[in-house]
Amino acid sequence: MAFVTEQQKRFWSPLVRELEPYVPGEQPKIQNLLKLNTNESPYPPSPMVVPAVQAVLVNQADVLKLYPDPDAMQLKQAIATQQQVEISQVFVGNGSDEVLAHIFKAFFVQEKPLLYPDISYSFYPVYSQFFDLVNIKPVALREDFSLNVTDYMQDNGGIIITNPNAPTGCAISVQDIETLLQVNRDSVVVIDEAYVDFGAESAVCLVNRYENLVVCQTTSKSRSLAGLRVGYAIAQSHLIAALEAVKNSFNSYPIDRLAIAAAVASFEDQAYFTAQCQKVIDSREALVEQLQQLGFNVLPSKANFIFTSHSHKPAAEIAVELRQQGVIVRYFNKPRIDNFLRITVGTDEQNQRLIDSLKSII
Amino acid sequence: MAFVTEQQKRFWSPLVRELEPYVPGEQPKIQNLLKLNTNESPYPPSPMVVPAVQAVLVNQADVLKLYPDPDAMQLKQAIATQQQVEISQVFVGNGSDEVLAHIFKAFFVQEKPLLYPDISYSFYPVYSQFFDLVNIKPVALREDFSLNVTDYMQDNGGIIITNPNAPTGCAISVQDIETLLQVNRDSVVVIDEAYVDFGAESAVCLVNRYENLVVCQTTSKSRSLAGLRVGYAIAQSHLIAALEAVKNSFNSYPIDRLAIAAAVASFEDQAYFTAQCQKVIDSREALVEQLQQLGFNVLPSKANFIFTSHSHKPAAEIAVELRQQGVIVRYFNKPRIDNFLRITVGTDEQNQRLIDSLKSII
Repeated sequence: MAFVTEQQKRFWSPLVRELEPYVPGEQPKIQNLLKLNTNESPYPPSPMVVPAVQAVLVNQADVLKLYPDPDAMQLKQAIATQQQVEISQVFVGNGSDEVLAHIFKAFFVQEKPLLYPDISYSFYPVYSQFFDLVNIKPVALREDFSLNVTDYMQDNGGIIITNPNAPTGCAISVQDIETLLQVNRDSVVVIDEAYVDFGAESAVCLVNRYENLVVCQTTSKSRSLAGLRVGYAIAQSHLIAALEAVKNSFNSYPIDRLAIAAAVASFEDQAYFTAQCQKVIDSREALVEQLQQLGFNVLPSKANFIFTSHSHKPAAEIAVELRQQGVIVRYFNKPRIDNFLRITVGTDEQNQRLIDSLKSII
Repeated sequence: MAFVTEQQKRFWSPLVRELEPYVPGEQPKIQNLLKLNTNESPYPPSPMVVPAVQAVLVNQADVLKLYPDPDAMQLKQAIATQQQVEISQVFVGNGSDEVLAHIFKAFFVQEKPLLYPDISYSFYPVYSQFFDLVNIKPVALREDFSLNVTDYMQDNGGIIITNPNAPTGCAISVQDIETLLQVNRDSVVVIDEAYVDFGAESAVCLVNRYENLVVCQTTSKSRSLAGLRVGYAIAQSHLIAALEAVKNSFNSYPIDRLAIAAAVASFEDQAYFTAQCQKVIDSREALVEQLQQLGFNVLPSKANFIFTSHSHKPAAEIAVELRQQGVIVRYFNKPRIDNFLRITVGTDEQNQRLIDSLKSII
């Protein structure tokens, strides 16, 4: 980013001068790179996706020049069908990051504290700052990074929990989420399920019973569409209405025509989706076993990544040495987790390359 | 939108309960519709666009699953080349609506008043409410809807002007903009040039001389890419840095891989771009003449739409009767402009159909 003088900063809104933006995982352009740092799928999207986009392009003269449907109804319908909810219970946005941003604005700009785990998606504190939340209260996970729902039985203006959690991969049960909902009747509980399809239980089944539940999901991980930016939320229609009011006060048309077509095709191919998720789960279990044999402690993961520390070699050193071999993993230099690596589960072949590299390092 | 009870609204952030969202022009699905309501181009994008997107898709297995470049450097480079500025002077976003939203957050959340014309893009008051601007001050255009720059020579925390203005189509000169910049050294002046390519003068030529100027443009109109959502801003790098801080606190990857490829191809085909803009300008001039012959008063337009009122038939009635013939134009039921229609310039054939319909109505 350009160097900005204090003199020049007088043009910035005061709050913006203090922002500490989110730093996404790097997208380096290195030959023969093994990229295990941003939790993308190692598999391509459904084979139905490219033909669906092609079908739009063939007719391009008539459609690229026209705005997309601001409500993306075709996409909402596809999601509603797959999730067995009503269209009015679906909100869509430009990736789940945009959906989460709108969630913060819609529900969490409250006087009472927003609760989230101390170790969680590092965008939450950024949104909190961006929307000038006056009161946020990180709740410490247990020593083993598991979440104790009773810690959330306190006065609050909202709760957001990633399930399975990032960057730990640890999941909580639907029973735990239901407990949380039962004791928090007057604030919104958001379950961020970016990684739910790799073995955790979704809370979507609770939406019709709890008027304060919002479930957020994405097509970027389990549907292999990170390149196209489609996220969504499921909730009762009165909560969706708040998200729509926010979205329509910010950007009317966040999802373009090609992304809509691609995501619809993905939702219509459940068989492929289920098969790819299972492949990732199988590869994860095999990878965990191999890592344990190399002296790694691996947290129990229900995600498409694992969170791990080694018995004697510091994580920061491992990350640097892996990089020298063209293998990129994610390292967070933050309290409690600065001796851990977050490693995306690749194909079995990719995981083998990771293991081979680790063997030469450890 | 779903009906929401007061009881349910307790879940909403207080500010969100008061939002009055922007209402985009409708996208009706009517057979044989002539859609002159949302200022889209009547022409397809450059013939280079579809092959560029195809080229990404052919290689899809490797890229759709991966996040796009969060900085969209390839796109910034294409814009920088076309606009003859540095890459560090370019900001890109999901349509110019998102870029404008970030501009409001980055520069206008100030105690001093934000100034904009009383008749202008109707999203400005919406952003003002969304970002909780404490002080906004609409400045009345003259009776003939022209803008008097001396009206902006007052203490302010920012100025935003659409040029050419929407929905009037009237333009101000670069000299006027320079005057505005010279007397406003301590606040940001934003020129929203969504429609500049149809005959108005761009202020981009002033960016290197004025540290407080931001120029915002879009690919949705003159580049026929409304369906793909790419907007951008040009300014000195210290202002771009504020926009990047805001963007990276909201959504890291707002522009997807296919939209990046399409927009790059469009910027690389200047000849097509120039030719299509000229066609729209020529059609506009012909249309204005025909409308005048039917008793319409047409404001001088430098945009791809015209703003017009009829000598004796109320605009609201004309809009309804046109719609009955499958011709959709935009009518704003707002003070000062409630006897005007905003009509997008179509192809000569489309404009002839409009004229034929009007002849049967007037």
